[in-house]
Amino acid sequence: MDKKLLGIDLGGTTVKFAILTESGEIQQKWSIETNILDDGSHIVPDIIDSINHHLSLYNMTPEQFIGIGMGTPGSVDIEAGTVIGAYNLNWTTLQQVKKEIEAGTKIKFTIDNDANVAALGERWMGAGENEPDVVFMTLGTGVGGGIVMNGELLHGVAGCAGEIGHVTVDPNGFECTCGKRGCLETVASATGVVRVARQLAEEYAGGSILKARLDNGEDITSKDVFELAEKENDDLALMVVDKVTFYLGLACGNLGNTLNPSTIVIGGGVSAAGEFLRSRIETYFKEFTFPQVRESTKIKLAELGNEAGVIGAASLAK
Amino acid sequence: MDKKLLGIDLGGTTVKFAILTESGEIQQKWSIETNILDDGSHIVPDIIDSINHHLSLYNMTPEQFIGIGMGTPGSVDIEAGTVIGAYNLNWTTLQQVKKEIEAGTKIKFTIDNDANVAALGERWMGAGENEPDVVFMTLGTGVGGGIVMNGELLHGVAGCAGEIGHVTVDPNGFECTCGKRGCLETVASATGVVRVARQLAEEYAGGSILKARLDNGEDITSKDVFELAEKENDDLALMVVDKVTFYLGLACGNLGNTLNPSTIVIGGGVSAAGEFLRSRIETYFKEFTFPQVRESTKIKLAELGNEAGVIGAASLAK
Repeated sequence: MDKKLLGIDLGGTTVKFAILTESGEIQQKWSIETNILDDGSHIVPDIIDSINHHLSLYNMTPEQFIGIGMGTPGSVDIEAGTVIGAYNLNWTTLQQVKKEIEAGTKIKFTIDNDANVAALGERWMGAGENEPDVVFMTLGTGVGGGIVMNGELLHGVAGCAGEIGHVTVDPNGFECTCGKRGCLETVASATGVVRVARQLAEEYAGGSILKARLDNGEDITSKDVFELAEKENDDLALMVVDKVTFYLGLACGNLGNTLNPSTIVIGGGVSAAGEFLRSRIETYFKEFTFPQVRESTKIKLAELGNEAGVIGAASLAK
Repeated sequence: MDKKLLGIDLGGTTVKFAILTESGEIQQKWSIETNILDDGSHIVPDIIDSINHHLSLYNMTPEQFIGIGMGTPGSVDIEAGTVIGAYNLNWTTLQQVKKEIEAGTKIKFTIDNDANVAALGERWMGAGENEPDVVFMTLGTGVGGGIVMNGELLHGVAGCAGEIGHVTVDPNGFECTCGKRGCLETVASATGVVRVARQLAEEYAGGSILKARLDNGEDITSKDVFELAEKENDDLALMVVDKVTFYLGLACGNLGNTLNPSTIVIGGGVSAAGEFLRSRIETYFKEFTFPQVRESTKIKLAELGNEAGVIGAASLAK
């Protein structure tokens, strides 16, 4: 029998598991709740128990696996296999994840951060079409990313490569939680889109459902903004989408000018706005790239959704 | 005897050669004029003759070489070892450089573009300190660059990775020869610095030697601007340097935020302005980077000068 890969996507509410073939086909998947009580001390033991339980359920042995790969929040030491500062897991002190999981499962273990792992997933089995040079950008609560070049993840000297959310798109822009100004995240994350909407609403005078809702003090989401723009042709919402996609196109343009990947993949919750979002990012991307990049680097939507994590994690083990 | 590397830096006026040890020490160097007559058809034969002549002069045989590496202007097909569109060499049609040089010297041959090769040189034996992740930026007639990550040059899907000169630093900026607006090259190349000086001079009213010279219709160079700023404390010149280093710091900042290299190396003619330039770029770099990058990515001046090309070219052959 061919050997298998085991991918784990560790998140703040669930831990997702999948057993994959070497060619990336998911054969089994399951998930458990993430128990973040007691400083997150149950998480690794729960993962070990769940793996061993499912291996016995499927009549499989550790020898049948090439390895386990895992994506995690927080700051990862890839060599040591440790994690620190994953606040949504209550992991504030150094966690010996690799050591414990290898001891508990007898399977070789590799770990990287969740955005990098999702990038590997989309590159391998998703929109990246397994090309050697693929950039992944995730627009969610924050903006994150991962960069694969020459077929390998980039980490940089302190593990910050791919932190696309903190690219400066407006030197005079909003303050970011990172301490500097004008980060892509301040305008293109889910909260960023709403921030841009509030800013533009202040100086907007015409008729707009979005303006009325904001003035009424209603809670507005990024999804509302995109829906009002696409379905209601709301003037203010369209202005917000234009401004957000301008910044995304500028950031993607400079990623293109710098790295010339075959594809920049857009994922995360905000990307649910789909082709309406993608086509507008692409228009600005073309404005901000020089001809050879404009013609060779594509802007695509992510294709794997929630499964990017486990698939990319599994590929770490290859 | 240990095997040697042969590096070639092909330019529009001279071809530089060097024989290096595997550890990067230059043992012999020489150069010849570049004969660009007859559509550049003498260039490759001249290179072959010069190599064979010097090998016999030094009593060396092809077997003593690991390989030859070469940096060239124009558009390079690395796999095929061909070059096209090197206009300063009069190479407008496809040149079979690898095939001809391997046949003429009996030594394995590798080729890449000149900015990438200079990046390899500075990374290996210069300011990059042989770290795995180093970005090189050259400020000359144009602005070029090369990116080494995980110890390997990045090329991208169409060979445009590292084209740092066309990063957009001002969406409303000057038009660039590439067809888009606000490229770093339009403000930070030698001509870009002068362009910024002319722009700021138009709205400048106070006393300034630079202003007086520009108003007199004198030819001003980038070197003049930096000298007036550093030595004469010229008010307008200082404003120009501030604006140029703002854009350079923004571009370096976003390279840092995206790639987190250990070092961004600044070379090329404009970098002769030295620490006066570097420290100002660094100040803006720190403004435009998030804390972990600010603390881990350094801004340094190039150290190898003209030799970056032959040294980097030689390293291609390793």
